[in-house]
Amino acid sequence: MSTGNRESLQSRAFDPFHPPFPEDHIMSSTESNWFTEAYEPSGSSIGFRVTERLHAEKTPFQTIEIYDSTDWGKLMVIDGCMMLTARDNFLYHEMIAHPALFTHARAKRVVIIGGGDCGTLREVLRHEEVEHAVQVEIDERVTRLAEKYFPELCEANGDPRAELKFDDGIKYMADCEPESVDLVIVDSTDPVGPAEGLFNAAFYASCFKALRPAGLLVQQSESPLAHLELIKSMRMAMRSAGFQAVKTLPFPQPCYPTGWWSCTMARKGADLSGFRERGAATKQFATRYYNADIHKAALALPEFMREALGE
Amino acid sequence: MSTGNRESLQSRAFDPFHPPFPEDHIMSSTESNWFTEAYEPSGSSIGFRVTERLHAEKTPFQTIEIYDSTDWGKLMVIDGCMMLTARDNFLYHEMIAHPALFTHARAKRVVIIGGGDCGTLREVLRHEEVEHAVQVEIDERVTRLAEKYFPELCEANGDPRAELKFDDGIKYMADCEPESVDLVIVDSTDPVGPAEGLFNAAFYASCFKALRPAGLLVQQSESPLAHLELIKSMRMAMRSAGFQAVKTLPFPQPCYPTGWWSCTMARKGADLSGFRERGAATKQFATRYYNADIHKAALALPEFMREALGE
Repeated sequence: MSTGNRESLQSRAFDPFHPPFPEDHIMSSTESNWFTEAYEPSGSSIGFRVTERLHAEKTPFQTIEIYDSTDWGKLMVIDGCMMLTARDNFLYHEMIAHPALFTHARAKRVVIIGGGDCGTLREVLRHEEVEHAVQVEIDERVTRLAEKYFPELCEANGDPRAELKFDDGIKYMADCEPESVDLVIVDSTDPVGPAEGLFNAAFYASCFKALRPAGLLVQQSESPLAHLELIKSMRMAMRSAGFQAVKTLPFPQPCYPTGWWSCTMARKGADLSGFRERGAATKQFATRYYNADIHKAALALPEFMREALGE
Repeated sequence: MSTGNRESLQSRAFDPFHPPFPEDHIMSSTESNWFTEAYEPSGSSIGFRVTERLHAEKTPFQTIEIYDSTDWGKLMVIDGCMMLTARDNFLYHEMIAHPALFTHARAKRVVIIGGGDCGTLREVLRHEEVEHAVQVEIDERVTRLAEKYFPELCEANGDPRAELKFDDGIKYMADCEPESVDLVIVDSTDPVGPAEGLFNAAFYASCFKALRPAGLLVQQSESPLAHLELIKSMRMAMRSAGFQAVKTLPFPQPCYPTGWWSCTMARKGADLSGFRERGAATKQFATRYYNADIHKAALALPEFMREALGE
């Protein structure tokens, strides 16, 4: 497993919840107006010029910080890891929602595990075929802070089809009525800490059981360049849980390590070829990244991924 | 124009050639082992954990630094801007070379403007239809340092079809015999400093004149997210120089601002639909990113680009 904790450089200088950072990370940031997240496993960092830290708190699950920035709008940082910026979250949210929803023939019941910022829920509810979407976020504070600082992501929270639960997603899926769900979206933090149990065969088995035939699971699957071994192990665990077909879709995501990210889709009892291209091409809602051509493009794997994943 | 000088944060602390950095960039980096490049126009930064600065010099054109890093191999930095890492340059070099070469029916004569690290030349010479490829780099020191620190990129420098010229690319194209070239690749630094004159209609007119009918121009065109106005103006200038068809191909590039980059292709007297898909699918050389599916995928534009570029 090539993943691990991302280390935040500059937030720590004025973060009361973090222990002092290790010697080899020292950057005097008291004078600086950059928030920089150094990602240890890949030896690279990404930073944003910030103007203000608007909020910081320690919840029972994690620390959450909100910054304002000069060029990326507001930022949400969890345990020192950049979760989203107002400017570039559309890439992730559109790609974790629309390819799966335009692959399923008619996803009526959707479960989102994690996704506390509500951006994925908003994208899901753009689909009129969705009759019910429940977001199961372990940390209510993520959602409350999103409502305050990222109201645009929470636009659909009042939709009568939306249900916001604050609960353990692993337990939720384990207890889910068999064959009751069309799509499970795992929109979690990295596979360390609270999200660790969302990346293994036991969890995938719960999802498999909860899904109806031809149901889909889609999960954020980290960086193609930095986490190829994780992607391989996720795909293997999905298959061993019974999923018949698995595909990984890369997409750009500037605020995450290496600036390149992916989601992995798996399907129960069917292959992943059912893209409703006409539906995507004539969709009645606006997107900024996703469209029918981007959907097909995201299914093309770079040569090194094709080799590593045996496709 | 949304571009400007990229500001290097940490290199400056021990770079004798740079003036003191501005107040709002201060990070005490003497104790740090990260090289971080803050890109002013987009208010974001990208850094790499370095182990050693192997070389630094001021040439008549620019300052060049070479670092070793923990996870990205050697890095080349010009005027504080990350030019390449050993680990991720394959993305850029493959994407600036192969889509154009597999679009042209048979590119025999190729001109590379810039490209001093020789990685583009290496990719071009993988194509057996290429009979002659000249690299016109203004700064010989870039190539000499690449030979020393990135020998893998210079593997093809001894190929009898290769010619290495150290000269002004703007002048070279202006003086080029009309209709003598099949493909011009502009592999330059950002459109400031020595490369500024490579991003305007006068230069594109020289390229147009030098190209044979159905000849191609391809140029690195910065970040889709941070430089959309630049991309628009490049495309407009290419069209006003006479090019019939223009297409922009995005691709991931972790070491460049926003981690997302692009190249723009233009064609003389023909459209850009002639992709030799069978040639790409049966190519006799190895790539790590590019393949026939990636070629088609790179032609799919995200929705915001399609809207901005009128496609």
